[in-house]
Parts: sequence; structure tokens; C-alpha cells
Amino acid sequence: MAEVLPTVDDHVLADRFRATRRLTDALASPLSAEDQTVQSMPDVSPTKWHRAHTSWFFETFLLVPLLSDYRVFHPDFGFLFNSYYEGAGARYPRGDRGLISRPGVVEVADYRRHVDYAMGQLLAQGIGRDASALVDLGIHHEQQHQELLLMDIKHVLSRSPLLPAYAPRPTAIAGDGSPTTWTAHEGGTTQIGHAGIGFGFDNEFPRHRTYLEPFALADRPVSCGEWQQFIEDGGYHRPELWLSDGWTAATTGGWDGPLYWSEHDQRRYEYTLAGDAPVDPTQPVCHISYYEADAYARWAGSRLPTEAEWEVVAVTRATQGGPDANMLDPDVLHPSPSPGSATSPYGDVWQWTSSAYSPYPGFVPEPGTVGEYNGKFMVNQYVLRGGSCLTPDDHVRATYRNFFPPAARWAMSGLRLARNV
Amino acid sequence: MAEVLPTVDDHVLADRFRATRRLTDALASPLSAEDQTVQSMPDVSPTKWHRAHTSWFFETFLLVPLLSDYRVFHPDFGFLFNSYYEGAGARYPRGDRGLISRPGVVEVADYRRHVDYAMGQLLAQGIGRDASALVDLGIHHEQQHQELLLMDIKHVLSRSPLLPAYAPRPTAIAGDGSPTTWTAHEGGTTQIGHAGIGFGFDNEFPRHRTYLEPFALADRPVSCGEWQQFIEDGGYHRPELWLSDGWTAATTGGWDGPLYWSEHDQRRYEYTLAGDAPVDPTQPVCHISYYEADAYARWAGSRLPTEAEWEVVAVTRATQGGPDANMLDPDVLHPSPSPGSATSPYGDVWQWTSSAYSPYPGFVPEPGTVGEYNGKFMVNQYVLRGGSCLTPDDHVRATYRNFFPPAARWAMSGLRLARNV
Amino acid sequence: MAEVLPTVDDHVLADRFRATRRLTDALASPLSAEDQTVQSMPDVSPTKWHRAHTSWFFETFLLVPLLSDYRVFHPDFGFLFNSYYEGAGARYPRGDRGLISRPGVVEVADYRRHVDYAMGQLLAQGIGRDASALVDLGIHHEQQHQELLLMDIKHVLSRSPLLPAYAPRPTAIAGDGSPTTWTAHEGGTTQIGHAGIGFGFDNEFPRHRTYLEPFALADRPVSCGEWQQFIEDGGYHRPELWLSDGWTAATTGGWDGPLYWSEHDQRRYEYTLAGDAPVDPTQPVCHISYYEADAYARWAGSRLPTEAEWEVVAVTRATQGGPDANMLDPDVLHPSPSPGSATSPYGDVWQWTSSAYSPYPGFVPEPGTVGEYNGKFMVNQYVLRGGSCLTPDDHVRATYRNFFPPAARWAMSGLRLARNV
Amino acid sequence: MAEVLPTVDDHVLADRFRATRRLTDALASPLSAEDQTVQSMPDVSPTKWHRAHTSWFFETFLLVPLLSDYRVFHPDFGFLFNSYYEGAGARYPRGDRGLISRPGVVEVADYRRHVDYAMGQLLAQGIGRDASALVDLGIHHEQQHQELLLMDIKHVLSRSPLLPAYAPRPTAIAGDGSPTTWTAHEGGTTQIGHAGIGFGFDNEFPRHRTYLEPFALADRPVSCGEWQQFIEDGGYHRPELWLSDGWTAATTGGWDGPLYWSEHDQRRYEYTLAGDAPVDPTQPVCHISYYEADAYARWAGSRLPTEAEWEVVAVTRATQGGPDANMLDPDVLHPSPSPGSATSPYGDVWQWTSSAYSPYPGFVPEPGTVGEYNGKFMVNQYVLRGGSCLTPDDHVRATYRNFFPPAARWAMSGLRLARNV
Repeated sequence: MAEVLPTVDDHVLADRFRATRRLTDALASPLSAEDQTVQSMPDVSPTKWHRAHTSWFFETFLLVPLLSDYRVFHPDFGFLFNSYYEGAGARYPRGDRGLISRPGVVEVADYRRHVDYAMGQLLAQGIGRDASALVDLGIHHEQQHQELLLMDIKHVLSRSPLLPAYAPRPTAIAGDGSPTTWTAHEGGTTQIGHAGIGFGFDNEFPRHRTYLEPFALADRPVSCGEWQQFIEDGGYHRPELWLSDGWTAATTGGWDGPLYWSEHDQRRYEYTLAGDAPVDPTQPVCHISYYEADAYARWAGSRLPTEAEWEVVAVTRATQGGPDANMLDPDVLHPSPSPGSATSPYGDVWQWTSSAYSPYPGFVPEPGTVGEYNGKFMVNQYVLRGGSCLTPDDHVRATYRNFFPPAARWAMSGLRLARNV
Repeated sequence: MAEVLPTVDDHVLADRFRATRRLTDALASPLSAEDQTVQSMPDVSPTKWHRAHTSWFFETFLLVPLLSDYRVFHPDFGFLFNSYYEGAGARYPRGDRGLISRPGVVEVADYRRHVDYAMGQLLAQGIGRDASALVDLGIHHEQQHQELLLMDIKHVLSRSPLLPAYAPRPTAIAGDGSPTTWTAHEGGTTQIGHAGIGFGFDNEFPRHRTYLEPFALADRPVSCGEWQQFIEDGGYHRPELWLSDGWTAATTGGWDGPLYWSEHDQRRYEYTLAGDAPVDPTQPVCHISYYEADAYARWAGSRLPTEAEWEVVAVTRATQGGPDANMLDPDVLHPSPSPGSATSPYGDVWQWTSSAYSPYPGFVPEPGTVGEYNGKFMVNQYVLRGGSCLTPDDHVRATYRNFFPPAARWAMSGLRLARNV
Repeated sequence: MAEVLPTVDDHVLADRFRATRRLTDALASPLSAEDQTVQSMPDVSPTKWHRAHTSWFFETFLLVPLLSDYRVFHPDFGFLFNSYYEGAGARYPRGDRGLISRPGVVEVADYRRHVDYAMGQLLAQGIGRDASALVDLGIHHEQQHQELLLMDIKHVLSRSPLLPAYAPRPTAIAGDGSPTTWTAHEGGTTQIGHAGIGFGFDNEFPRHRTYLEPFALADRPVSCGEWQQFIEDGGYHRPELWLSDGWTAATTGGWDGPLYWSEHDQRRYEYTLAGDAPVDPTQPVCHISYYEADAYARWAGSRLPTEAEWEVVAVTRATQGGPDANMLDPDVLHPSPSPGSATSPYGDVWQWTSSAYSPYPGFVPEPGTVGEYNGKFMVNQYVLRGGSCLTPDDHVRATYRNFFPPAARWAMSGLRLARNV
Repeated sequence: MAEVLPTVDDHVLADRFRATRRLTDALASPLSAEDQTVQSMPDVSPTKWHRAHTSWFFETFLLVPLLSDYRVFHPDFGFLFNSYYEGAGARYPRGDRGLISRPGVVEVADYRRHVDYAMGQLLAQGIGRDASALVDLGIHHEQQHQELLLMDIKHVLSRSPLLPAYAPRPTAIAGDGSPTTWTAHEGGTTQIGHAGIGFGFDNEFPRHRTYLEPFALADRPVSCGEWQQFIEDGGYHRPELWLSDGWTAATTGGWDGPLYWSEHDQRRYEYTLAGDAPVDPTQPVCHISYYEADAYARWAGSRLPTEAEWEVVAVTRATQGGPDANMLDPDVLHPSPSPGSATSPYGDVWQWTSSAYSPYPGFVPEPGTVGEYNGKFMVNQYVLRGGSCLTPDDHVRATYRNFFPPAARWAMSGLRLARNV
């Protein structure tokens, strides 16, 4: 964010602000008040919490400091809806978000309207370059929460024995099941990181040189059919394929397939946002941890790419998700490659890399509380690249760094193989 | 229940059934869908779970076996809403009840109507003595859940930093703060337990002889003012006053007053169903564990009564809660003694006794699944007597045995002292 | 202890003191320094801790207050070897006793000699009645720790994959496998508790009246062969036989037989202080929890006796363990009934009763720190009666109340059935 | 190890084998049987376990496969003393190593002699290049356990309220307290990793190119005096200095200084292998986690070096620890810089780098069970460089990669600062 030049004028910014806020509400609209209240594990936040927290972000970082006469909506909401900003004061414990019955969805909707109205005023009166950058950050922040909202509600609904559907089943688009092809790269000194045109999070900066050995990257993610072969070859029961911590996670967690997979009626099913459905072997596998991705790659005689390897190949295809990629479309919401999208670097599933999430050489966080955005999480996590079928289309780019702990499985996480050449 | 003679005719039973069901819905009516969904600790159940579970009881034990052509409302509800009956099949884990977003309150209301309609049919067609006894049991079971519903929602709402009110504040009725008087009893061989007229739970049977040494029982419960003296005398910091397990519970739990008490603005407050309120020293103290009750009694140079001592004195006053007692009244919902009620054995607060919850000599549980009602809990719990301001007035009697683990504090539990004479 | 009249003169007391101290050292002598250091679970204490703690008891309650010029052996031992006396100051956490590598066994032996020498001086100079009673208490306290030492080291050694033996295998004495006979009692008002002649712990006082319904008590404990039938009839897999908390303990603990039982080479074995040995069906079953005892009794159509029932029958046979009973004998150390001992109320195994451990009516703990001896544990435990093959012969009597939490299994605990007549 | 050319002849190897084995026994010799038995936390292993496990390594990987007629010392030792090799069969749970009272130290000493004798035979009969490489690996493995043995016993003894000393206090050597100087490096494409001459662990291979930005590295580690300034400036209470996971670790762990620091008598002390001693401000700070190192660096306006940065600077000074460095010397055993050693890259304390522990590009683990040596731990850990005052002098080199989880504090871990230039 630090080095972003706000190239959008205020009008365009206001339009994007409104469209983003509207999409959040649209994504919540199929959900009952009860659905929006439940927290199924500490990593998951209730839908209404996401809706309130994204509003709190604009209230705290834009409205309170910049809009004169702004009246804070509720004195306790700062405590309830601060996620992790130490600089913004005390906050409610993360693992207890599912205990908040009040405010309910109606009051949260009021809160959103209150913030939207005030943001409309602020944007109408014209704001400077720094504030525009903060609004842009708030928009991208809300887009991240759109994906989290969908990931989280999928987890919530999956815990119900009724296995309810969030949305109707999409028209199935089967892949063609053909073998992976590979793109080779000659290696050498190259550059990665954000070049400074357009929005970027602070963790994408600074652009810097890195040295790569020659390698090849698969042209598509690993499919469910390939994953079934891994399972049938004993992949979940052979410790020599696993990292030590991964083997502990798999055995204590009783893992024998991706999260949401089950077996009944003599076949494999996966829980999707459209309810339980038979596993489609041509679709990219999803909801796997870093540990599983790493074990699969070892089994396949390959390895995971580094984030630099991923980026230097992806950037040759397209610098951003585009019409080819299967990204957030309320009518799909599941990995589901069309002929065009199958080999896009973007969409369907986030792709685990072998890169621990670390600061780039020369990284400097933003000053002030928003500087807590990314830097303080740079430990115990691994980088994922490419965006997923739940990521807003204009949110991702070749330099975008997503990250999760290696045992996390509730994100739309899959993998793309790499190998030495 | 075993030896109950159904003295009510079917008409009266149907009226009581309808009135009980109506009261449950009335108690839930101030609560939003979100309020009814939250589970704030494993002991607490969501409001909508109580509403569904009490319906499941009638469906499982009456409608399925007895009403021909009865259609079960939903095939998964047996799994979701069975509380603890091993004989009724697998069940959803207790600690995860707060993860059930669906069915929501609307579908639960449908379930209740479905069951009420079918119960109306069943009762209209006339049922025999055994089935009447089961309906009676179901009514008393639902009354227990009315109190649980209120206890539980109090705990849920207390976890919100907003400290919301369930109901408007009642008109304050202060006690007179006068010292306790004592009723002496000469002891000897006496009888306790249910005599067989009217409804009783299986754990009240059989009536049997027991030998008592002479004793005296206080005429009213310990008050908040007296409890404050205990606190100020270091009661929570003097291990010699406590049972060893109690001292561990108090220190690891950080107890320094009853659950829901706090200190701000230089005075003591307690969270009530009407929100935060200053502690009234004339009211009975409430939300204390057995451990605290026992420590207080030791501090006061007294002891807790046994359940037999409580019963032989209470029965001389009144065999049941009556107009004098402060019992479940939606306009009060808090210990709040009127001049008349102050010395009733019933109402305001359940009173811890020193009696471990054990079977009476000759106790035989009911055959079949309803036999799991009480017997299997007869370990690691202590008996409380007398009913509280959240207990339906016609639910309690002199022989009634309530029970909780000694560390439990979210029930309306207080104490009445006893001493040797 | 309170009402004990010291009937022993100082000479006899000194002899008993020395014999008791000697036995403790003899019991520890087969154990290496490493064996004496390990704590295999929080309930277990290392052997050298028992040896030091029993010395600390005499040092703290006798030598420091009464022997002029007594020099405390080490200033930190009070902190390390206080078990649970709040009145004796801060203490080392119980669960960390296995982390104490120093003092080692050599220094602990020095400590014992130091205390023994000083106690010799104290006893030689003549002490009064109160002090004599304290010495007597210390002797009985050390006898309790002799049994604990053996129970605990059995647990420690059982955790080793080598299953080492503490002692050589005793000569096997098989019971005769004959069915149980029953002793009937007509009930009525009777008395239990210590009558005041000879030593008694405070929890055995005061003697008091109690009312009993008619009942019958089995003449011998339940045997391993009978327990095998319970297992084979699915006893560990039928929830209807179990208390609810017991079922949770059994399923989460994976219980499918008594502690120390295993199955290999197509037969059942049990770990004993002489190493692994085939289960002898004629011997009393041992190392079962209250929950298992209760479930077995229900399965057998019987029940556990109350402690009053046990006592009124036992007292008609013998008021104390005697030559018939299989009690602490370093050549046996295992339930192993001889024809004479099989029907003694004492020895072989402690017998669970259905009585929660509570104060007797009128119970008053000792003043001062030794008053913490028993009273503060009177919650969440059940009474056992009769002594075991690890209890010193002169330690137990008809009124003796042992107690453990209902899930405990590492004591020498078995059961004797009762039934209504 | 994979690419090691065994440059030593068998004679020299046998000498080194014997010297290494002797040193292990010498390090254990001040410890009692009790000391050698205790496990003070799951990460710590008992001394006698280290002594047995290092013997098991030679028995399993050399003697069993290569020495004809070799008799395994004890059939259960494979189970007890396998650390983490899945390929070598089932193993005893790591966290329960402190429960193993038997074998005791005497039997462990027998085991060592048995293995040493057989290894003498094996080495005398001449072995090939692959086996020599395995012996070399076994020697380096045992050297690692020499440091672990000392780290672990320090933790064990520190848990005793007696704070016993493992060794006499060394002659104090104070540093000069002068400010840090910096060595600049121009960056660019450079190479790191083992060049193939002499022993190396598999994780040091392959040597490979990497690109560095210009940087500077401090010439000495951060001192205790500097750390005290960090503490006094509120370093442990300012979340903005910390990684998010680090802040959680610090607050839940109650950290307010390095492990083993305490405050009494108005000054700071640290527990050392010579007992409690006042903190010497001129000595390198030790026993800090990655989180603390990272927070300190941020506070100091610097950062941690990457492992590549550390290596390219260290290699210009010395390729190995040498006479200048304060490494394992039984008379010192504490960070204690002499004028010569203060600026050595080696010795005193391991230095945290900002590099997550990952495979080098092209890394291939050894085939077979010894391939589990390093690769499977390459997740959730950070690299440390340079060796410590507990590391054998000939064990470390410029390419050596040590690793610990970021919250670990019981290793001899400190830090050296880096900065961008």
C-alpha cells in the first residue's frame, strides 16, 4: 500500500466503494440471522461479524479522523469489531465471536448503512491522496472478507448434520481429465514483487531481485482424480511422505482425505456451498493443508513451487485474474474449470507454495495502526498464490501474497506442482 | 414418576399441556433469532434447542409409539434434539449445540406447532393411565426446561459487553434486613420422600425412614448483605474455610464473589435478567456454587442442612410453592422477597444442601428409556431444594430434589443455614 | 483423632514409631534411585517423596514445636515436602513432584535418619498426652503412605514397556471359586462410627445413630472370574449399566477391563508387583473405579452397600484386620485369598461403598493445621472400607473410612455386593 | 551427508569415535541417577535417555546391519530409544521419557560399553566408505546430543527450588562493553551451502547461488546489558514491536525477560549451569526465543540477518569454530567472551536468523531411514547459526544449520543484528 499512487479519481473510488459494500450484503443475503451468528471454530468468524468489522475499518481509519461531526455508531462496537489492531485499543476475544448474540443482523445492517452514508459524505467532499489510498485499502480489505465470509459460512454449514446448501447447485462444467503439461523456466537472476502501478498490499513490496535455478511449473492444479490416486496408494498412511509436524497433524486429526470429503453409498462426496455432491475427478482438489500438498508433491516425485517461481511464470500469462479465470461468481462458488480457465494461473483454488511467509528484503510496514495489516503475521505461515473461485475477480494479481498456517484446510487451497529441470 | 396415580382426567391434562407449551413460547418471545442460537458454555443450551428438545420428548415418547399415522417432523431432529437418552439412539454432541444454525427459530416454531397439533389429537382420542403419566412427565420436563431456558439465556446475555436486558426491571421489593430466626427440630426417626399422591419424579421415591440428630434451620436464605460481609472478611482468600476442591475451583476460576457480581463506580453490581443493577443487600444471594455455600457456612459457624433436615422442616410449612413464594413470574425473574415470601421454604433461590445426590434406599428407575431420566446422574452432584424465582410455581414440592455439580454457579442457587442444637 | 485417649505408654509408642519407620525404608529398599524419582501421573508421588514427606510430618508437627534446639534439616524441605497443608505455608506443585531430582535418595535417607534421631530424643524425654496423640497420628499417617508408596510404585513400574517386577512372585493361593453366600441384616436404627477406644481418624467421629432398611451383604468380594463374565457380557459397552459420568470416563479412557489388565497370547494378564501374570479367576478383582463397581453391581442385579451397611456387618465378624486377613505382607502384595481370609471383611481389596464421603453428623475437625487432615476432602469422593493386601495389618478397623474419587483406579479397590431383602 | 567424501582413514575415525563417546560419559558424570532420570518438559530428554539413544543409533544403523553375530543388547531398547525414525519401527512416546525408571543409569552404562566394544570390533575389521560415512554421521549425531544433554539438564535443574549447580562457577571473563561495530557486504549473486570437503549434514547441501541486497552484519552478539535496556524501555509490553504469534506467546507465557532470568535482592540474576548468578551486562544474552530476538531487532531499528547473509560474512572470518571461539569447555559452559572470542562468528550463543528452515533448492534427503535425519523437520522452525558455548568445537562450520521452533527458549540462543545499507 505504501507506494501506491492513487490513479483513480474520487468518483471512481466512490463507485467502487459502493459496489464492494453492496456485494458483501448480497453475499450475506441467503443467510438467516442464525446462520450469521454461529462461529464453528476459532478461525471462523460469524457472517455478521465480517459485515460489522469491515464497517468498523472505515469508521476507525477514515470517518473518525477525517469526517467532522461524525458520530460513532455505538461506543462498544470498537471493542467488539476490532479484529487484531493492537493500536486501536482493547478488543473482544477472537474465539468468543460466536457468543455475541447482540448486535443482531438488523442492528449490523443499520451500522453498515450508517457507515455507508457517512462515507458517501466524506467521498463527496473530496479527500486527498493519503485518504484515497486508505479507502482503497478498505475496499481491498472488504474483498478479503468477502472470501472469508464464504469460506467461513461453508465451514459453519458443514457442521450441521443437515448439510444445508448456501446456494443452488451450479451447472456442472467438467474438465477434460487430460494429463498435466509443464512450462519450463531457465532460471537466473529475476525480479519479483509489486512494480508500483496500481494497488498493492505492503507485503508485495519492495520489488527485488532473486536468483532461481531452472525449473518447470505445471500448467494446471492437481485434480480430485489425481488426489484419489494418492489416497488409494496409501498417501495418508505413509509417514515417509510427510513432514514430521504434518504427520502429527494428519494422525491426530484423523485426516484421510481433504476437508469436507466423505464416503457413503460406496463413493466419495464433498460438501460444497451447494450441499453434498459427488467428487468430480476433473476438478481441482481443494481444502487441503500445506502438509497434504507437500506430501502429495513428494508422492508425485515433484515438489511445490517457491512463490518466486510461481510469480515469474504467472506474470508471463496475465498480470491479473481475468475473464478466463473461475473467480467469485455467485452462480458458481466451486472449483469448476472451463476449457478456457483450466490453465489460467488464477482462480479455482489458491495454490500452496513452499515459501514461508516472510518480509521481502527491504520491507517496511506502513506507519501507524494500519501497519499491523500484514507484517506482524510473517511467521508460521506459508504463501499461497493465484486466488480462488471465492476471490473477487479484480482483487488478485501476479504479485499477490495470501498466507495461511500449514495445517489450515478451510480456505480454498489446492496446489500446482513444480520440478527441477 | 413410578408410583404416580394419574388423578387428572384427560381434559385437565390437555389444558395443562397447552398452558405449559404456551409458557415456553412466551419465555422465548423477547429473544431474537441470534439470542436463541448462542451457546455460551457447554452446560448452556441455546433457547431454540430447549424449544425443540421439549417437543422431541413428546414426539419420541408419546407420538411415535402411540399416535397412528404420526409423521415424524424431520428425520434428523431425533439426532439433533436428543439430550442424553442412550436408549433413544445416537445424538449430537452437547458442547456443539451452539453450532446448529439450522433449523432456525422459524422451523423450530413449526416443529412445536406440528407436535402440539398431534398431541392435541392424541389427547382428544383418550389415552390410558401409563400414557397420561408420560404426558405428565413431559409437562414437568418442559417446566424444568423453562427454568433452564432462563438460566441459560441469562448466561448468554451476560457474556455480551453490552450487558443487554432480557426484560424490564421489576419494581424493587426490598427485604427488611432483619436477622435470621431459626426453627428447631428435635430429630429422631422420621420419614422423607414422596408419599405417592400427585406427580413426583422417580428420584423422590421411595418414601423411607431416616434418623436425624436435633438441629435448627434458618428461616430465610443468606442475603447479599451477609455475603458482602463474608467477602469483606476475606472469605474468598482464606483456604481454611474451603473444601480442598473448592479452593482449587475458586483460585483457578478467579472467584471473588458470586457469578455475575462485578465492581465498578465504587460499588457492587450484579448482572440480572433486567441488565446490570446494584446489589441489594436485603435480597437472597444467588449464583453461588456448593463450594462457596459450604465455605460461607463454615465462616458463619454454621453448616448446610442435609436434604432430610430441609424436607422435614419445609413440609411443616407448606407442601408446595404457593402464593407466598417468589417463583416464576415474568414480571420479576429475580430473588426479591416480599414480606410474605421471605420465610417461605420455596422460591427466590434453590438452596444447596450438604447431601450428595444419591438414590434413596430401594430406588428403582423406570423401565425403558425414560428410566434414564434421573438415576444415571446420581454421582458428583449435590441436592438443592425449594425452587427459585425462575421455577414454575406448580412445579416444586417439599420432596423435590434438584441437583448440580458442586462447582456450578449459573443456576439460581443460594443457601439456607443449619446448625446443631 | 480428637477424642483418642492415648492408652499407650511412651515406650510402646517409641517402639511402634521405630517399627513403622523401618518398614517404610524396607518397602523402598528394592527400588533404585531412578525408580524412587519418577511420577507417572499427578496422583502418584515418587517413592522418595513419600519417604521425605512422612519425615516432614514429624519434623513440622512434633520436632519444631516441641524439641528444644531442634535444627531443621534443610530450609527448603518444608516447601518441597508439604503435601496439602495450607496452614503450613507455600508448597511445591503436586503434579511436578517427578521433576525434583534433588534431594536424591541418599539425602532423603539422611533426612529420615536426622528426624528419627531427634524423634528418639523427644520420645525419650517423655511427652504429654496431646503430643503422644500427634505421634500416634504420625504413625498412622506413615502407614497410609506405606500403602500409597506401593500403589504408586506399581503405577510407575507399569508404565515401563519392560514391565519390571518390584518383588518375586508369591506362592499362588487359589480361592475355591465357590458362589457367594450372603449375610442378612434386619436393619433398624443402629450406630456407626468410632466408639472412642484406641486410635481413630477424625473422620470416624462422632459415633452416631443411623436407620437402615433390611439388607444382605455378600460374604466375599467379587472375583476376577465373575468380572470376566461381566466383560464377556458386554459390560463395558452397555451404557444402560453405567452412571452418566462413568460412561464418559469409560469411553474417553478406553476402559475395557480393570486397570493393569491386558490381553495377549489369547489370554488375560494383569500387571502385578511381581510383574505380568495371568489373571487368576478365583482372586478378588482389583483396580476398578467406583463407576465400574457400580456398573457391575447393576449388571449383577445387586447394588453396592452403604458404608453403614458394611460397618454393621463387619463389626460382627471382627473389629480389626487380623491373622485371617490378607494384608500387607512383603511376600504377597496381591489379592490372594487363603481359605481363612476369603470371607474376612478385611484385606485383599478395599471395597467401594455407595456412600459419598461426607462428614458424620456433628463432625468437628481438629483445631490447627492437622485439622486439614480429612475434612477438607469431603466432596467428590466415595468411601471404601476394609483395607487391602497393601494395608498394614494394624492400621485398619471396622470404622475406618478410606476415600477416592469415583474415577480412581490405581488403588487396590474392588467391591463386595449388597442387595435389598 | 550425502555428498561427503570420507577423508578420514579408519584409524582416525576409531579415535574420534572413542573420544566422542568418552566425552558424553564425562558430561553425564557430575549427575546423579535421579538427575539423569527427570524430564522437565516434553522437549527435554533425560540424560540417560541421551546416553542410550546415541548408542541405539550406532547399534541400529551400524552394528545390526554390518557386524556379523552382533547380539542386540536388549530387545525392548529399540522401542525405548528410537527418537523419531518412522522407518525404524514403533517407538515410546517422547513426552513420557521421564517415566522410564528402568533401565537405570547402571544398565545404560552397560549398554554403552556393549555398543562401544562391538563398534571397536567393527572398526577394527575395516569398513567401506558408506559405513564410514555412517560412523561419521553417528559421531556428529552424538555431538549434537552432547549439547542437548547440557541444555536439557540445565532446564531440569532450573526447575528445582534448590537451584543446584551442575559445575563449579567458571572464572568470570567480562567483555569490554564497547559498542557494536558492523561489517558491510556489497550483496549481489553469491553462493551458500556446503562445498563438499569434509563432513556436512544433508541439509547443508547442495551449494547454490542466491542473490543478496547490500547489508551490514554486527560484529558481536547483542549483550545482556543491551537486553536490559530493551526491558527497561518496555520491550516486553509493547505489542507494536512483536510478531502477532510472538505477542501471544509472550503474554500467555508471562515472559518479561530471557528464560532463567529472575529478579531478587533488587538485581537481575540468571540461572546458569553453575547455579544462580548475577547477570553480567557484557556477556551475550542467551535463552531467548525467535520472537524475542525479532522484537529486539525491531526495537533497535535493525533486523535479524538471513542465513545467507550470516554465512557469507562468517566464511570470510573462519570456516570453522576455532581456538578463538568460546565453545564446549567443561570449565566454562556459559557465554563468556574473551577479548579474542568476542567477534568470532562462532561460539557463546547460537544466533537466530530470519530464515525459515527450508530445503535448499535441489535438496535430496538420504535414501533409507537416516534420510529422516533433517528433511522432515523443515517446517515451523527457524535457522540458527554459529554454535554456542555448549557446542563441541569441531562440530560447527560456516554452513552449519541449526533450527528450533520460534517459541523455543531452552537452547543457548541469542542474536546478532543486521541492517540494510
